[in-house]
Amino acid sequence: MIVNTLEPPYYAVIFTSILSNDISDYQKTADRMEELAKLQKGFLGIESARNEIGITVSYWESLDDIIAWKNNIEHTEARNLGREKWYKKYQVRICKVEREYSFKDN
Amino acid sequence: MIVNTLEPPYYAVIFTSILSNDISDYQKTADRMEELAKLQKGFLGIESARNEIGITVSYWESLDDIIAWKNNIEHTEARNLGREKWYKKYQVRICKVEREYSFKDN
Repeated sequence: MIVNTLEPPYYAVIFTSILSNDISDYQKTADRMEELAKLQKGFLGIESARNEIGITVSYWESLDDIIAWKNNIEHTEARNLGREKWYKKYQVRICKVEREYSFKDN
Repeated sequence: MIVNTLEPPYYAVIFTSILSNDISDYQKTADRMEELAKLQKGFLGIESARNEIGITVSYWESLDDIIAWKNNIEHTEARNLGREKWYKKYQVRICKVEREYSFKDN
């Protein structure tokens, strides 16, 4: 799902990843993390797509909200498992969204 | 392909989209736009994934570079075609990348 127009400034975490060969339990944990993220303070939305690489963008009200989510215990455990098992490589980028435009076909 | 670590601050354009039912010539134009973007001043990299939605993130040295690319004539024509034909909906977010982290399995 595309996240509808939000009011800048707000923050985005761009997470791009390549999975390893062992992805047992990956989808279950990814779904759980998305569910858990939605419960966090300052969460604004999340977008995901994957084919050769995966891109997940989550949107947040503030940098502090991103840090609090990073420090969430269950998220930290999932991230550790991710590094041990599921991910061959990933990149995390923390961004301030300054402007936004949208188009919708009528 | 994942774009390797860059040096913040730099800029990102997050483009999320849902395609319409008519995607004739879409991939050809998308490939051409990626090729053309790579030739622009200030271009740093591009990442793409699509299943239910498409997410393309392009990275740029400055906001001015993003504006110049937006105003490129061939890009403008492709965008017009995109609105007429290929996209049911899209969202464009212009962001300043402030921090970044990476992981690579050894």
